[in-house]
Amino acid sequence: MTTELSPATELPPTPDYDAWPIEADIETVDVTPRLVTVRWSDGRVSRYHSIWLRENAGDETTVNPATRERILDLSRLPGWPEIAAAEIDDTGALCVTFTPEDIRLRFHPGWLRAHDYDNAEDPEAPLVPVTLWHGGPDAALDSLDASGLLDSEAGSAAEEAILAPALESVLGKGLVRLRNLPTQSGSLETIARRIGPIRPTNFGLLFDVKAKPNPDSNAYTSIALPPHTDLPTREYHPGLQMLHCLENSVEGGEAVMLDGFAVAEALRERDPEAFATLTRVHWCYANTAKTTDYVWYSPMIRLDDRGELLEVRIADFLRGPLQAPFEEVEQAYAALMTLQQMLREPGFAIRFTYAPGDLVIFDNRRLLHARDAFEGTRGHRWLQGCYMERDEIRSRYRMVQRAGRVMRLDSK
Amino acid sequence: MTTELSPATELPPTPDYDAWPIEADIETVDVTPRLVTVRWSDGRVSRYHSIWLRENAGDETTVNPATRERILDLSRLPGWPEIAAAEIDDTGALCVTFTPEDIRLRFHPGWLRAHDYDNAEDPEAPLVPVTLWHGGPDAALDSLDASGLLDSEAGSAAEEAILAPALESVLGKGLVRLRNLPTQSGSLETIARRIGPIRPTNFGLLFDVKAKPNPDSNAYTSIALPPHTDLPTREYHPGLQMLHCLENSVEGGEAVMLDGFAVAEALRERDPEAFATLTRVHWCYANTAKTTDYVWYSPMIRLDDRGELLEVRIADFLRGPLQAPFEEVEQAYAALMTLQQMLREPGFAIRFTYAPGDLVIFDNRRLLHARDAFEGTRGHRWLQGCYMERDEIRSRYRMVQRAGRVMRLDSK
Repeated sequence: MTTELSPATELPPTPDYDAWPIEADIETVDVTPRLVTVRWSDGRVSRYHSIWLRENAGDETTVNPATRERILDLSRLPGWPEIAAAEIDDTGALCVTFTPEDIRLRFHPGWLRAHDYDNAEDPEAPLVPVTLWHGGPDAALDSLDASGLLDSEAGSAAEEAILAPALESVLGKGLVRLRNLPTQSGSLETIARRIGPIRPTNFGLLFDVKAKPNPDSNAYTSIALPPHTDLPTREYHPGLQMLHCLENSVEGGEAVMLDGFAVAEALRERDPEAFATLTRVHWCYANTAKTTDYVWYSPMIRLDDRGELLEVRIADFLRGPLQAPFEEVEQAYAALMTLQQMLREPGFAIRFTYAPGDLVIFDNRRLLHARDAFEGTRGHRWLQGCYMERDEIRSRYRMVQRAGRVMRLDSK
Repeated sequence: MTTELSPATELPPTPDYDAWPIEADIETVDVTPRLVTVRWSDGRVSRYHSIWLRENAGDETTVNPATRERILDLSRLPGWPEIAAAEIDDTGALCVTFTPEDIRLRFHPGWLRAHDYDNAEDPEAPLVPVTLWHGGPDAALDSLDASGLLDSEAGSAAEEAILAPALESVLGKGLVRLRNLPTQSGSLETIARRIGPIRPTNFGLLFDVKAKPNPDSNAYTSIALPPHTDLPTREYHPGLQMLHCLENSVEGGEAVMLDGFAVAEALRERDPEAFATLTRVHWCYANTAKTTDYVWYSPMIRLDDRGELLEVRIADFLRGPLQAPFEEVEQAYAALMTLQQMLREPGFAIRFTYAPGDLVIFDNRRLLHARDAFEGTRGHRWLQGCYMERDEIRSRYRMVQRAGRVMRLDSK
């Protein structure tokens, strides 16, 4: 039997920690055993399946109130959850009685509306629209004065005033340059932790990019580096890279950034066969050093199940011997060379010189970075770098959104 | 003009750090402009494309000798590399003269044979064959006495005698239990670093699995946890998890491990439609806490482009609201419940009780782990955990293979 409840006076808890503003009221509700149809005050009609509602309730039979994580196992219910009755209560919540459990559960209208899968256009749309960009002589990085970052309190509005536009640039354009940061060795760790945990690798928590006596990477010499992503030799190559300039007094060593997605889309348009080849053939990426041996096979351009760009893996100096089917080899190399030529077109590149205190944060599965050779015997060029996952940027940005304090970026 | 060289007296360098034993000699070599055909002393015939040979030379125009990383950019050559002549020299190396560069390059026969893509069956075959397993009352974990691990020197034969079979179990079966390790808090960090760098998350470098006053995860309570993978809420969920038991004196809290790939293959056989649904529908995985907000969308079972299992993402308590197309919702839940029921079948589970000093290392994108509820008020149950990428296990195992010291595992 349905328990008789005293009239509700406040909206029910949602199964999460978010606040859900009410942008429309529920005006009417219709039910069939497996469907609730809601008509909103602005005319929108949303259908919700009984089983979906059951498992997304925010009550204590469904969610552990301490952690807001689900404790319900649908397959342990006495049967497929169906609707016995539904109504709108005095608070505006949707109240549904489910059989065969005989349980009455309430749903927050703001939460229901925000999770209206019946009308959702693209629930997986990125947090910030992705904007492909071309470079060229007049192109400049999105740059922000971050001099106040380390003096700001963690989680404060002052911190978010710097981080929010920075995260927005990284999510949308794949990169940002923060300026006027400290130049002490190791300060990158403190800066990075303002966003999230660093992902260490065999090169350390932080790595030093400078000419070294016994280099274990071309990055640690003074030679030019062609446009590349870092660590394509890993199954899960890092989503973000940060490069922080501590010193730069050398001749040469100019930095270059390209939007790998813009290059890939241009290739798709100009030479669809080369593009298709690079999304199909698995290249070998290898970093066999004296004490480590990383190998991974992957296409150079990866697409998602909708045919949209997922990631690029490009780094000539980290490719091992191609192990493709015999009949694929010549067209694979032809496609590679077409790509290599495009990577040299000045129209794709943003060129800049690192100043001490600059920190460039970029998407390592989308952007390509390169550098010119430099004169290694006079002056110093010292960058510190680290990796992080894109999840951290997204989580941080959602927290900023939750607080409703997103500010707009002014390029300068 | 081809430079005249004095006769070679030793084999040429390879483009890597590996040693390549010579298991057969090159007996004859035939060429066309774009192909070298080699006949080996055991009768095998291998074809190599001119362009493939050119970019895989080990000389100083191709590879930086300090780092063994490629410096050649194929698209900067004066034309597609073709063969002017080829011969076998006194050392047994293949010598090829390329046009239009007019350069003579030598290739190590052991390296050539090992990279014979013309005859390779599956160059991407896993390092250790993957063995799916079922559990049941008599099933036991592969277990190893690791009491000597921390006293062994890093990189020593004594260390490898423990690590090699452990890595082999993780690569093949997805898990291993090391026993008799220290029980100090934090010792997991020292142990893990014997394999590779730890991947920290918002839960820390190491995380403590015990009942806590203000839990931010169901893991940090004393309630039962259903079979799950950790951090499915991340785009790149960790490839490995390590759980190290420091204390265990509670009633209950028995640990359960399942081979998620065995469950998925059983589902594919018993209910192909449910299997197909779970490889297609994107579920929402969400961990919205007070200060972080991780969300990712993915199928529950992911296949590679050959239809083979790539990974599973299963964790009911970390699923957010499904945002699938309306007409997919009922079949998605039906498939989920079929899977949930299978996850309770005792035939898939290995059950065991953690003893202090045990460390279980498992593949977090293949294995599912669970635990029974425990009595949280008497005794203590304290595990420390951390994450790592599968790349680290593979790199470490390749180093062991390089040293030729792989030992066989005796389950005990």
